[in-house]
Amino acid sequence: MGPGPITVDPRVLRAMSAQLVGQYDPAMTAYMNETQALYREVFRTRNEATVLVDGTSRAGIEAALVSLVHPGDRVLVPVFGRFGHLLREIAERCGAEVHVREVPWGEVFTLEAVEQAVREVRPHLVAMVQGDTSTTMNQPLEGVGEVCHRHGALLYVDCTASLGGNAFEMDAWEVDAATAGLQKCLGGPSGSAPLSLSPRAVAVVDGRRSVEAGLRSDDEDVAPAPVRIRSNYFDLGMVLDYWGEKRLNHHTEATTMLYGARECARLLLEEGIGNSIARHRLHGEAVLAGVRALGLEVFGDVAHKMHNVVAVEVPAGVDGEAVRAELLHDYGIEIGTSFGPLAGRVWRIGSMGYNARKDAVLVTLAALEQVLRRHGARVEAGAGCAAAQEVYA
Amino acid sequence: MGPGPITVDPRVLRAMSAQLVGQYDPAMTAYMNETQALYREVFRTRNEATVLVDGTSRAGIEAALVSLVHPGDRVLVPVFGRFGHLLREIAERCGAEVHVREVPWGEVFTLEAVEQAVREVRPHLVAMVQGDTSTTMNQPLEGVGEVCHRHGALLYVDCTASLGGNAFEMDAWEVDAATAGLQKCLGGPSGSAPLSLSPRAVAVVDGRRSVEAGLRSDDEDVAPAPVRIRSNYFDLGMVLDYWGEKRLNHHTEATTMLYGARECARLLLEEGIGNSIARHRLHGEAVLAGVRALGLEVFGDVAHKMHNVVAVEVPAGVDGEAVRAELLHDYGIEIGTSFGPLAGRVWRIGSMGYNARKDAVLVTLAALEQVLRRHGARVEAGAGCAAAQEVYA
Repeated sequence: MGPGPITVDPRVLRAMSAQLVGQYDPAMTAYMNETQALYREVFRTRNEATVLVDGTSRAGIEAALVSLVHPGDRVLVPVFGRFGHLLREIAERCGAEVHVREVPWGEVFTLEAVEQAVREVRPHLVAMVQGDTSTTMNQPLEGVGEVCHRHGALLYVDCTASLGGNAFEMDAWEVDAATAGLQKCLGGPSGSAPLSLSPRAVAVVDGRRSVEAGLRSDDEDVAPAPVRIRSNYFDLGMVLDYWGEKRLNHHTEATTMLYGARECARLLLEEGIGNSIARHRLHGEAVLAGVRALGLEVFGDVAHKMHNVVAVEVPAGVDGEAVRAELLHDYGIEIGTSFGPLAGRVWRIGSMGYNARKDAVLVTLAALEQVLRRHGARVEAGAGCAAAQEVYA
Repeated sequence: MGPGPITVDPRVLRAMSAQLVGQYDPAMTAYMNETQALYREVFRTRNEATVLVDGTSRAGIEAALVSLVHPGDRVLVPVFGRFGHLLREIAERCGAEVHVREVPWGEVFTLEAVEQAVREVRPHLVAMVQGDTSTTMNQPLEGVGEVCHRHGALLYVDCTASLGGNAFEMDAWEVDAATAGLQKCLGGPSGSAPLSLSPRAVAVVDGRRSVEAGLRSDDEDVAPAPVRIRSNYFDLGMVLDYWGEKRLNHHTEATTMLYGARECARLLLEEGIGNSIARHRLHGEAVLAGVRALGLEVFGDVAHKMHNVVAVEVPAGVDGEAVRAELLHDYGIEIGTSFGPLAGRVWRIGSMGYNARKDAVLVTLAALEQVLRRHGARVEAGAGCAAAQEVYA
C-alpha cells in the first residue's frame, strides 16, 4: 500500500508466465501491434508512434528527452517535487540549457505561471510531471499544450504515477510526448515504459535518424544525421523503426514485459478508463477520510492530490520509520516515506491498481490504527475504518 | 531454435509469476543481494560491483560504455561482426574517439593483432564482443585483459550471446567490465542485463559520481562531478548506490525481471557452469554434424564458433526466407538469418539454454530435412539425424 510499485494484478502475472515466441514470429509482431493499439487508447491518443521502451519508467523519460532535445536546446522544467528534479537532471545530461521554475512541495503550477515561464524562457521543450508521487500532487495540464504550441514549444509529460487513476488526455491536451510505467495505477510490475509521441514530436526525431553500420546493406548510403541522438538504446527513431513496418532490429524486445504491459492495458480498457479513475477516486477518498479520522494531518494541497496516493504528516513524537517497519513486519503492509525534504516527515499511502480495493483500504486503516496506538499516538478506536466505510456507503 | 531469444526454461517463467514485494522490503533487498552473489559466480568474478541493469542486453552495453568513457576518450573496438559495430556505434554516441580494427565476418582476432592495435591506439578502453551471434564467432579472450592493462587500458566485454554456454572467466582473464542478457544460454527472456565491474572500472565510475537534486538532503553539499555521466538511467555510480548498502533510490527495480534473472543463475549454478558448457558443446556438435550431413556448408571459422549457434550457407537455388517461413509455419520451429552482409545469405540455428536438448536438436534436423527437400535441395534421407545421433552416441 505504498506509492508504487504495488501488488501486481494476478492476471498480469499469469500473462507474464506465458512461453516466449521469436521476436519476428507473426504472433509476436501481432502482439506488438496490438499493444500499440491498446496504449493509444490508454493515453487517449491517435498517435501512430505509441510503443514500449524496454526499461523502467525512468528509461521512458530519458528516451523521450534524449530523442527530442538537442544539446544546447532550451528546456523549461516546472518543478513541484522530486520527479520534476529528475526531469531537470535528465535534460541537463542530454546537454540542454535547462530553466527551472519551482513551487513549494505540496503545490502545483497555475496555467498562468506556466505561460509566464514559457514567455520568459522561450523553450524548445517544456517537461512536466503530471503526478509527482513525492508530494502526491497532480498537476492540471489542460491548456498547457496549447500554451506551449502558441509559443513554439513541445510539451513532454511524465504520467507514470497518475495514468489510469486520474484523467490523462494526450490529444485533447495537446501533449507531444508522454511516458509512463506499469507499476502504479496500471497494476503491473516495473520494467516497461509505455511511450507516445505526437506527429510534431516524431518530426523532431525524424530529423535525427540514423541506422547502425552493422545493419546497413552495402548499397545503402546513409548520410550521418545532423545531430545524432546521444543514446543508441533510447534513440526513438530506431525504436520506432523496430516497432514499425520496417521491423529494423534494434534491441531484442523484452517479451515477458510486453506480455505484462499488454495485459495491464487490456484490464484497464476492459474496466473502462472512466471506471478505473472513479475507482481510484473512491478508494483514495476512503483512505483520506480514514487517515484524517485517525487524527493525522494530510500533506499538501488536497484539492490537487492524485486519487491514488495520500501523504500524511508523521505526528510529533512518533517515530515514522518504526511505524513503517511494524506495519511491514507485523501486518505485512508496506507504506512509503518520501524523498529529499520530506524524507521521514511523511508517510505515503497508496491505493492504486490492484490495491485500489475496499478490503485493502480497510485492512490498512485497521492495521495503522493498531500500530499508531502502540507508538504513542492518540487515536480514536475504530474511527479510521468507520470514516472510510462512510465514504463507501 | 534461432540465435536467441529462445524458448524460456519453464522454471524461469514460474519464478517470474511470483507476486511482487516492495522495493525496500527486506525480502526484496535480500533477493537483490542474492542475485548479485549468483551473478558473481556466473561471471566467475569476485567483483562486489555485480548488478542487473533494467533493460535488454543492449542497455547493459550502453550502461558500461557511457559510465566508463568520457567524451573525447580513445576507445578501441576490434570488430568481427554486427555487434562489434554496435559497440563502435554506442561508444561514438558517448562522445568517444573511436578506433576500429576489423577482420572479415567469420573470423576472430589473434592476441597479437589486438596487442598491435592497442599499441597503436593507446586507448582508454578496449571494447570487444565475446560471441558475436551475427557470425557465430567466439573471440578468444585469454591474455587480452593482460595486454590492455600493460598498456593502461580497461577491457570491456559483451558476453551476452556466449555466457553460460562457452567459457567466460572474468577475473582470470582480467576483464574490467562485462555485460550480458538472459535470452541466450541462460534460458530466460530478454529484459535484464547482468553487469559486473572490476575495482579498476569502479574507480573510473567513482570519479564521475553525482546525486540527484531531488534526493539530496539540504545539508548535503555535493560538488558536481568533474564530467557527469551523460545518462541518468545508465549512470552506474547511481545504479551501484541503489544496489549497495545506501539503497539510494534510482530506478524502481523491475522485480519480475529480477526474479527471472535470479532463477536463470540458480539453474545454471545448480547444473554447474562446466556441465552447462559441456551440454552446449555436445548439442552444438550434434547440430553441426547434422547440417553438414544434410549437405549444407557451414559459414566461418568453425574452430572458433560458439557452441550454441551455427551459421549455414543458404544453398544456391534455394529461397532461404521461404525455408525459414515454412519451418516456422508448418513445423513451429524458428531459425534465424543474419544481418548486413549476411542478411538472407545464411541461416543461424541455435541450440542454447533450454533449447540445448537432444529432442530439440533432432526435431529441428528432421524438419529441416523435409523442408529442404520440398525447396529443391538435394538431401540424403535421414542423414542429418543420423549424424547427430552419432555425436550423441
